[in-house]
Amino acid sequence: MSARIYLDVHGGDRAPHCNLDGVLKAAPHLKSEVVLVGKPKEIQSYIKAKGSPKELTSCLISPSEEVIGMHEKPLESIRKKRDASLPMACRLASENRENSAALSAGNSGAILAASLKYFGRVPEVERPAIAVLFPTLNDRTLVLDVGANSENKASHLVSFARLGSQYMRVVEDRTHPKVGLISNGEETSKGNTLTQKTHERLKECKDLNYFGYVEGNKIFSGDFDVMITDGFTGNALLKTSEGLAKTILLLLKEEIQNSLPARLGYFFLKPALNRFRKKVDYKEIGAAPLLGVNGLSFVAHGRSDHVAIASALKQIDLAIQLNLYHAFFNGKTEEAKRAQH
Amino acid sequence: MSARIYLDVHGGDRAPHCNLDGVLKAAPHLKSEVVLVGKPKEIQSYIKAKGSPKELTSCLISPSEEVIGMHEKPLESIRKKRDASLPMACRLASENRENSAALSAGNSGAILAASLKYFGRVPEVERPAIAVLFPTLNDRTLVLDVGANSENKASHLVSFARLGSQYMRVVEDRTHPKVGLISNGEETSKGNTLTQKTHERLKECKDLNYFGYVEGNKIFSGDFDVMITDGFTGNALLKTSEGLAKTILLLLKEEIQNSLPARLGYFFLKPALNRFRKKVDYKEIGAAPLLGVNGLSFVAHGRSDHVAIASALKQIDLAIQLNLYHAFFNGKTEEAKRAQH
Repeated sequence: MSARIYLDVHGGDRAPHCNLDGVLKAAPHLKSEVVLVGKPKEIQSYIKAKGSPKELTSCLISPSEEVIGMHEKPLESIRKKRDASLPMACRLASENRENSAALSAGNSGAILAASLKYFGRVPEVERPAIAVLFPTLNDRTLVLDVGANSENKASHLVSFARLGSQYMRVVEDRTHPKVGLISNGEETSKGNTLTQKTHERLKECKDLNYFGYVEGNKIFSGDFDVMITDGFTGNALLKTSEGLAKTILLLLKEEIQNSLPARLGYFFLKPALNRFRKKVDYKEIGAAPLLGVNGLSFVAHGRSDHVAIASALKQIDLAIQLNLYHAFFNGKTEEAKRAQH
Repeated sequence: MSARIYLDVHGGDRAPHCNLDGVLKAAPHLKSEVVLVGKPKEIQSYIKAKGSPKELTSCLISPSEEVIGMHEKPLESIRKKRDASLPMACRLASENRENSAALSAGNSGAILAASLKYFGRVPEVERPAIAVLFPTLNDRTLVLDVGANSENKASHLVSFARLGSQYMRVVEDRTHPKVGLISNGEETSKGNTLTQKTHERLKECKDLNYFGYVEGNKIFSGDFDVMITDGFTGNALLKTSEGLAKTILLLLKEEIQNSLPARLGYFFLKPALNRFRKKVDYKEIGAAPLLGVNGLSFVAHGRSDHVAIASALKQIDLAIQLNLYHAFFNGKTEEAKRAQH
């Protein structure tokens, strides 16, 4: 069977239209097939309204009539609506996990629950993590966990370091990914109980390129490949960064609109500002891999528009081409074995 | 005695010159006297080299020959070097605490330790907090704790909510400050053990205008006056925001330099971009009050330049004029009384 991406058509604040427009935009660049998991009538009428573009008409549809809302309780929702588009995308991808992936911009708790249910956990990993690639001046830094967990133990954070390192090796081609542990200062006297315990354990991990405590500003400096933290702190960092980037772009717009010379200047500066906006916009970053589940599952931002979905599809397509499932889990198992000695 | 600000001349990465230049810049706008706590010879030779401007020559000097380094252990350093410029600034301010304040851009752990030693704690407050005013689109949001503590209990966070509310009432003139508790989602099912316990207690506080869980992006939206979190998470948020703002400004600069039309556009856009830069630059924000100590103690950023020190001095001058010590501690005591009923 060819490589496939199972897309939860009804997941996300702007679903289903933005999801379908994302497929339309990305399809010419993809080697994988996209399977549209959702309500066939709604999908087909949208395809017709769009003038039946071949990118969409050639997609497979897996019928699913139910939808899980953004605020439904994760475990309850996937139990009661097991055939909704979100869990069905995970189930279908898990059936051919070697060259399939699931993508949803829906309820992230439900994506986590459905991924655990259908893909299962990687044996040595106690808790999966959501990993996000943050933009830096010249490249990207992977930060995890940004919200799969509300509370973590040191053993979880150690496995996050392994999962993140392996992802960066395979997908971003970093040979010896530099790992930092987010703390409130670089000195070892700093940190809280969790980071202190984690630091003691990470120091002993010969398979990791661990550099100790780092502060949050290093996320954007490009000095590290992987930065790990507990899911509560990581989520706060992610949301704060989104809020700040959005506010900065709004302030910039406001300043430009407030003066005539600035509006003139903007005319010349527009292409540069657009390139800049692209660099800091989460929409260009794609989807966040859910690491630690035994397969390929990706979480897109709830506010994803068609650009964000298209970026996510391209990124996942690449991950499948790079044989992430094999490279990842073979590598991981070897690492875990080494760590036990 | 007139109002006084005791400045730790040798605190900070760019001390002492930037600190003295900050005084020079701010002095014409201040009602308080600035007392320069530091090495007299070094201070005087710099004043001479500057052409003996009257703003600096009229400042009082409190001689102190020792300096606490940025990476010295806080408690040990203030015990061994009790007459260093940092603890001396706190001690002198505490001797006339009703209309004095201490300011340092030095070792923040040592500022905390020295402030606790000389000012003491406000009786009902178990732990002081460092509070930072973050810029929003139209105003500012106070976030605390951003690093006085590595680990907190629910009772600490409840007092942070009271301290922050009172600060915003007195200094920023917000009548009923809206308080949010930073969490990994707005639903009450979210949060970790600490936020869940804190939420239960805050709901019962009739003296606070508490709105429940909020996500990190709300720091910059201006929807809340006070946002509280534990010192570990708050520090990570602060550092991440600084790193992101810096990277965004660098990316913008890079994009402008990379194209000729953009450089032309920049000529017209420059005043607008400078106003924008001012809004997002920590240097314009001033110093962070250390709330919960029984007096006025302010922490400036370690990388403060003369602009940052001047902003801090103006802000502290205003706080003294507004009679912050009285308003704050009288108000706080009343609130604590009410809360006990």
